[in-house]
Amino acid sequence: MLGYKAPVEDLRFVLTKLLADQDLNSLPGYSEFSPDLVEAILDEAGKLCATVLFPLNRSGDEEGCRYENGVVRTPKGFKQAYDEFAQGGWTGLTADPEFGGQDAPNTVANAVQEMICSSNLSFGMYPGLTMGAYHAIHAHGTEEQKRNFLPKLVDGSWSGTMCLTEPHCGTDLGLIRTRAVKNGDGSYNITGTKIFISAGDHDLTDNIVHLVLARMTDAPEGIKGISMFLVPKFLPNDAGEAGPRNGVMCSGIEHKMGIKASATCVLNFDEATGYLVGQPNKGMRAMFTMMNAARLAVGIQGLGIAESAYQGASSFARERLQGRALKGPKYPDQAADPILVHPDVRHMLLTMRAYTEGARALVAWVSAKLDVSKRHPDQQTASDADDFVSLLTPVVKAMLTDLGTDVANLGVQVLGGHGYIRENGMEQYVRDARICQIYEGTNGVQALDLIGRKLPAHMGRYLKQFFHPVSRYIEEHADDEALAPFIQPLSKAFGRLQRATGVVAQRGLKDPNQAAAVASDYLRLFGLVAFAYLWARMAEISLPHIEGENKRFYRAKVDTAQFFMDRLLPQSGALFSSIMAGGDSTMDFDDEAF
Amino acid sequence: MLGYKAPVEDLRFVLTKLLADQDLNSLPGYSEFSPDLVEAILDEAGKLCATVLFPLNRSGDEEGCRYENGVVRTPKGFKQAYDEFAQGGWTGLTADPEFGGQDAPNTVANAVQEMICSSNLSFGMYPGLTMGAYHAIHAHGTEEQKRNFLPKLVDGSWSGTMCLTEPHCGTDLGLIRTRAVKNGDGSYNITGTKIFISAGDHDLTDNIVHLVLARMTDAPEGIKGISMFLVPKFLPNDAGEAGPRNGVMCSGIEHKMGIKASATCVLNFDEATGYLVGQPNKGMRAMFTMMNAARLAVGIQGLGIAESAYQGASSFARERLQGRALKGPKYPDQAADPILVHPDVRHMLLTMRAYTEGARALVAWVSAKLDVSKRHPDQQTASDADDFVSLLTPVVKAMLTDLGTDVANLGVQVLGGHGYIRENGMEQYVRDARICQIYEGTNGVQALDLIGRKLPAHMGRYLKQFFHPVSRYIEEHADDEALAPFIQPLSKAFGRLQRATGVVAQRGLKDPNQAAAVASDYLRLFGLVAFAYLWARMAEISLPHIEGENKRFYRAKVDTAQFFMDRLLPQSGALFSSIMAGGDSTMDFDDEAF
Repeated sequence: MLGYKAPVEDLRFVLTKLLADQDLNSLPGYSEFSPDLVEAILDEAGKLCATVLFPLNRSGDEEGCRYENGVVRTPKGFKQAYDEFAQGGWTGLTADPEFGGQDAPNTVANAVQEMICSSNLSFGMYPGLTMGAYHAIHAHGTEEQKRNFLPKLVDGSWSGTMCLTEPHCGTDLGLIRTRAVKNGDGSYNITGTKIFISAGDHDLTDNIVHLVLARMTDAPEGIKGISMFLVPKFLPNDAGEAGPRNGVMCSGIEHKMGIKASATCVLNFDEATGYLVGQPNKGMRAMFTMMNAARLAVGIQGLGIAESAYQGASSFARERLQGRALKGPKYPDQAADPILVHPDVRHMLLTMRAYTEGARALVAWVSAKLDVSKRHPDQQTASDADDFVSLLTPVVKAMLTDLGTDVANLGVQVLGGHGYIRENGMEQYVRDARICQIYEGTNGVQALDLIGRKLPAHMGRYLKQFFHPVSRYIEEHADDEALAPFIQPLSKAFGRLQRATGVVAQRGLKDPNQAAAVASDYLRLFGLVAFAYLWARMAEISLPHIEGENKRFYRAKVDTAQFFMDRLLPQSGALFSSIMAGGDSTMDFDDEAF
Repeated sequence: MLGYKAPVEDLRFVLTKLLADQDLNSLPGYSEFSPDLVEAILDEAGKLCATVLFPLNRSGDEEGCRYENGVVRTPKGFKQAYDEFAQGGWTGLTADPEFGGQDAPNTVANAVQEMICSSNLSFGMYPGLTMGAYHAIHAHGTEEQKRNFLPKLVDGSWSGTMCLTEPHCGTDLGLIRTRAVKNGDGSYNITGTKIFISAGDHDLTDNIVHLVLARMTDAPEGIKGISMFLVPKFLPNDAGEAGPRNGVMCSGIEHKMGIKASATCVLNFDEATGYLVGQPNKGMRAMFTMMNAARLAVGIQGLGIAESAYQGASSFARERLQGRALKGPKYPDQAADPILVHPDVRHMLLTMRAYTEGARALVAWVSAKLDVSKRHPDQQTASDADDFVSLLTPVVKAMLTDLGTDVANLGVQVLGGHGYIRENGMEQYVRDARICQIYEGTNGVQALDLIGRKLPAHMGRYLKQFFHPVSRYIEEHADDEALAPFIQPLSKAFGRLQRATGVVAQRGLKDPNQAAAVASDYLRLFGLVAFAYLWARMAEISLPHIEGENKRFYRAKVDTAQFFMDRLLPQSGALFSSIMAGGDSTMDFDDEAF
């Protein structure tokens, strides 16, 4: 019932207009990525997503992955789609050309990523995990490891995983029990059980490269005794191809709420041969290389689902005839008006739209800074950009995945009873989106990361990278009357964020629980202000064009910005009050009374 | 993994302390229902729900209903459970003793209803629909219809349905196409297709009594030409038992997001024999008799799910060891602290708790007024209570079902990855709860009902029944220092509601779209104020007991009230601002740009 069309026009707007000042094209290595090439990449990716991945989304959900005799089978059509995906070079879009990659900017790759998540979140998990493994090996592996594994990960013939969680520990990785015992030849024997391993087994690739957190003999207790190991499903033979079977077996897959075509595996490591990646006992550091990128990627999953839900809901609302406009029939020739005329339906659609397009702008902003942080020749500029990305990563992860769920739920609501029926596809978005709030660190953990690590880091240095441009923007446009409907609410919300930041930091110094108890509210306030800033800028860019060419697009931008300021940004006031009320009522409650 | 225990202690608190002034026991016909009897009923119902219905909840979800050769089979165990349920007299709990009912107060029956929804929402649909049919026939049927059908519905040997929706119309019933042609014998021939018919076919009862909205030959167009017909699956024979098959067939069931053990049927009526219920062309009025009760019942479904989700999340949080408290280990003898020590987990649990217990109090309040409206000997008192119930029904339906979904989602979040796994049961609550926001009038329709019908009714007469007691309560306790932490925020939020009410009414007179565009925000603001009032009262009742017997219970009440005021009620400010911003940005958006 639902369809999907890549939002190329909005992506173009964001990448070329909103990010105009970032001048990504001039970063070393990115000169090839002219606007024309970027447009061609987006078009090509959009076509692949709409015609190959999206048609497998519903069937993949109904069929799910199957576990049979120790192997996992992905749903019908997945293998063929994956081959097409890999042959198109999409598995190595951002990868190092030395290993066969395309070296595309993150800004572009993340736009493609959004489309993949919109069209088939489950499918996207497989190459997504591979990219995580690629980054960790690229950053921390030996030259030999890079030579042996990266080309295969880049061309998609092998895939990757991140093996962290065990039955008794998820968030608290210090409790990991998987053991690594040294062999004579420099390799290790890995033994233990890992759960919730996405892409842990499947039939899409010739081999799977597991990155496993484990504890060496005599390692220090807790988080400081964790090392990272590379454990291939098949050990490479002399020709560099998948050779003998290694001691890792999938003993089952989970039956989940959603992302049913993504295999979530229990993996048993039984004296499997593994190779140390990076330094002994520094596995957490190496894993974090993957996790930061992964957290951004998960935020983009929320955006992707939101876009699909919006597209489905808006086309339903245009077509479904039901009831009449309150002020009399708007389409008197039809048996009823399309439900689009009803104020509450419009309210839902505009909420979905304002969050989705705001999220897209935020992803683009952070992705551009990520490119600057990695490529800019000026060290200070690069380091500033890195601060910005560090600060915003938990906001992108938590806020965009919360909104992904909210927007998908609104999509169901717009469809009414039809939204609840599996065949129609909308409820799948709700089920698929739900995991994004949990994996790669629950959203509560993201809020704690923001408030406990990112805010205090280097005496608040990260924060400046966000506060300064917003504050400068508000000052610069303080007297612009045309922009007043956007600048004034932004300014008010930003003031709340500034005050909340001071209060939370102060209270947190005395009692960390006081900060932690309001962390989720604070993260949301932060994210709303980021959205407000971006919506104000998008309105500013669009206002001069509302009577010209393509005026419908620009008019919609301005109107959506106004809706965001009017109807959604007021939440900043409630969050501010809740933060100010503090953590006492959260912490004082008697443990035994829960 | 999850469990369920009926919250009898909290129900007792609400029914005996919070409702102490309602004196239900003295209403005509209710004198038998002493506190002791009520307690015995709750205990008995709680046992049945925990030991018979709850154990079938997960298996029912996995197995679902099956459609085979024109018949629907409910999941394993449902028939046996249903028989036990019916034999216990639970199908006729509130029914007229003339037809075999128990004539229990709604206040008590709705407490039982909560338990049923907590333990097995799908199961509860079958007797729930029967009660709807019972009420419609009881209110509008002929004496013969009552005699022939009510005893069977009351003893549960037959069940009922409401047949409204057709493929092209849900909310807008004026579009109904099902036809009713008069036969010579006073009966009608009913022909048409109905979809989304809950309990439309199943194997739990000997017969199914469909109440069908259809259009008589030459009926006026639209909503004024709809009549209600009673169409039994099997026509009663001379002995009054299920006789020959009638022309209604189930042609399929829907595959849904949740409530999978509840059969959602497509019903084809092919010259089926039907009997007019009530007046010709007054079917909507008759249907509304069922719908108001059904809307309260759906609100209670939201509460029921919320309670189960809270119970599951709080026990998981007590048992799951992960990480350490921020200020150092709280349980140093264990490998880690239970996640209950983490501020964000506490914040989630307290949010769940404050909403759930607030919802329970609201349901009790409205149920008590319902009893007064139906039984009180003083006509003015009864009529005032009826106004109150009319006003609050959309609030209960929409707010409690929204919260049901929110609380279930928080439950998943507390469980983390384990919440996403079907076996663990929590994600089912999210899927089951989701339909409650849609059926019996979407929550958007409820908001429109509140703002468009209930507020302006009789020049605002309904509103007084809520505003007066709240305003009086605030005045009476203005100088009570111990209560200030509750009365002050209540008073502030109530002020916002009063101002919003005036502004919305005024703007709505000029342009109904202006009111409709903020209707959902207004309904939520209304509900939050109702919760705040009830939490203030519960705090007031509990404060004198926080050092006495059962002090843990009362202390928790006071602390939860404080948490509600600190962290949740501030939303009233955001809603107020959003309402004040008005509907322009919602209505001005170009239809073609969506």
